[in-house]
Amino acid sequence: MKIEGKEYRTIWFENNIVKIIDQTKLPHQFIIKELKTVKDSINAIKTMEVRGAPLIGATAAYGLVLSILENNDQSFLKKSSNELINSRPTAINLNWAVDRMMKKISGVNSDKIFDIALKEANEICEEDIKFCENIGLNGLKIIEEIYNKKKEKVNILTHCNAGWLATINWGTATSPIYQAHKKGIPVHVWVDETRPRNQGANLTSYELNEEEVPNTIIADNTGGILMQRGEVDMCIVGTDRTLATGDVANKVGTYLKALAAKDNKVPFYVALPSSTIDWKIKDFKDIPIEERNSEELSYIEGVDENNNIKKVKIYPKKSKSKNLAFDITPAKYVTGLITEKGVCDASEEGLSKLFK
Amino acid sequence: MKIEGKEYRTIWFENNIVKIIDQTKLPHQFIIKELKTVKDSINAIKTMEVRGAPLIGATAAYGLVLSILENNDQSFLKKSSNELINSRPTAINLNWAVDRMMKKISGVNSDKIFDIALKEANEICEEDIKFCENIGLNGLKIIEEIYNKKKEKVNILTHCNAGWLATINWGTATSPIYQAHKKGIPVHVWVDETRPRNQGANLTSYELNEEEVPNTIIADNTGGILMQRGEVDMCIVGTDRTLATGDVANKVGTYLKALAAKDNKVPFYVALPSSTIDWKIKDFKDIPIEERNSEELSYIEGVDENNNIKKVKIYPKKSKSKNLAFDITPAKYVTGLITEKGVCDASEEGLSKLFK
Repeated sequence: MKIEGKEYRTIWFENNIVKIIDQTKLPHQFIIKELKTVKDSINAIKTMEVRGAPLIGATAAYGLVLSILENNDQSFLKKSSNELINSRPTAINLNWAVDRMMKKISGVNSDKIFDIALKEANEICEEDIKFCENIGLNGLKIIEEIYNKKKEKVNILTHCNAGWLATINWGTATSPIYQAHKKGIPVHVWVDETRPRNQGANLTSYELNEEEVPNTIIADNTGGILMQRGEVDMCIVGTDRTLATGDVANKVGTYLKALAAKDNKVPFYVALPSSTIDWKIKDFKDIPIEERNSEELSYIEGVDENNNIKKVKIYPKKSKSKNLAFDITPAKYVTGLITEKGVCDASEEGLSKLFK
Repeated sequence: MKIEGKEYRTIWFENNIVKIIDQTKLPHQFIIKELKTVKDSINAIKTMEVRGAPLIGATAAYGLVLSILENNDQSFLKKSSNELINSRPTAINLNWAVDRMMKKISGVNSDKIFDIALKEANEICEEDIKFCENIGLNGLKIIEEIYNKKKEKVNILTHCNAGWLATINWGTATSPIYQAHKKGIPVHVWVDETRPRNQGANLTSYELNEEEVPNTIIADNTGGILMQRGEVDMCIVGTDRTLATGDVANKVGTYLKALAAKDNKVPFYVALPSSTIDWKIKDFKDIPIEERNSEELSYIEGVDENNNIKKVKIYPKKSKSKNLAFDITPAKYVTGLITEKGVCDASEEGLSKLFK
């Protein structure tokens, strides 16, 4: 998708270097960063220079390619793969991408391993783009249906960034929005700012602006009253891990919007590529919930009156804070799952019909 | 209550001047500000140097006293009262306090009017303090009951600031917490930061710190997962306007926490002095919901590395935002109303038993 009129992907491989858009610098600075080692990749995932379940999967895959370039030794590869899997706990795509890579390259002859690894990492990316595009086409039908009934601008609420910046291109939750916009359906997006890291404001609103999709940032607190006033026609969010039961782990606060949607009869959709499905965990209580540094809450970055980036402390000196990154939206609050293969019920039956 | 070990109220009258704690400067600076004219009072309410339903009621009452000092003329008084009522739309206490004052002073002889007005404004404050203290004693019983069952620290979640800084002293939602703390019951408060103005972080956590009540700031998004994990024993919030039906208008985001509390069987209480009850409006859709300047969202203030207060812009240049200040929590999600006269059901019947 476009930034300042130019087409980009979020990650690409060029001259034995992985290039990413440093998402910790957005929206105030657009910086392309180079990853040259597996450590760089792990660091990019940990510090959230790359984030979003599909994109961290792709970064892990390219991380293994870099690992091979550094040290073409199976034990180093094994160590790298473990470190990559452990770089963040909640998104399932990390496991998925590393497992998929390792199946292709474990024990492979050292003169072939690099080519095979790079091909597989590239394929993970191409596949993700195709999946995201299909999610968009499948979700488009839902937006079209609302538009055909309403004959007016469709208001869509989203949380966090499940946009193209969270994937390789198109995004998951935003893909149906981009497709609708392309087709000329008038859409407007309510963007939850998504504290504490404000990925809604910093990334979703930013990328929608760049594609000229009308959008308005709101505090995370505001979705409820907007729904009470009939100003939200549907919600679409992404997911970091979808259980076979249809329960969804996504950015903290998603659950609260799903409750409000249910209470106000607003359809609540979750968009996902099948790579985020966890077929193993049966009880959502077993999903590890990442706790991040509490300074993500107490400090915030912005630009000052001279357009310099400044970090300020916003909390009282004596206060402490707690930073849980995800919550669980039980399947009963999810109207449907928008996947690359179609839209299904948020249930074992629904998912099995499409994917088993 | 205490700030740096010294007892304060939020507003007091001294040598024909009204003194307030400038709450827009907290928690980074503690500044006592002087209001000398009715315009100063209106401005203090509009810019939220004073905020919280009971405190803005008291500020309006003292505003009329200042108005009399400025121009002892009934038409000026009438104009002042209208301007005070219109300084903010959602809290009912503004109307209540101005009506109460005007009943006492409309048409009163000019040599007596100042003394009568000052006495009434002082009484509004004394009454609020007494009401808040009683809210505390009534709410204390609920906390005690939980403690007697659990035999462990009671975790209480609150939203925004319904603390002593929102009233004259004690607070509404915090009053039971202060009473429990005084009695030696171990309590811990989850403080929603409460975007966009962060009154939870800036004021509630600040005042709890100063009274040495253990507390942790969380993003507004976090209450849901904490309840899902069983880490919240009860919620207590304040209200800006309580309908006779038991529906509650409070700081935007309150509704989302009430939904999560219901979903997780966590008791959800609203603390209020009877002055916030609106006996007239029957349908919550008729409550005016204040829309505030969107720059409250896109700009934020904090302290930089040199301890200087800095305002930074946090949103992308091209983004717009919308700032609704309140939402409605329907009575069915409220476990009970904690009032100065006792705890009752959030219903016309419950409120009528206590107050009619």
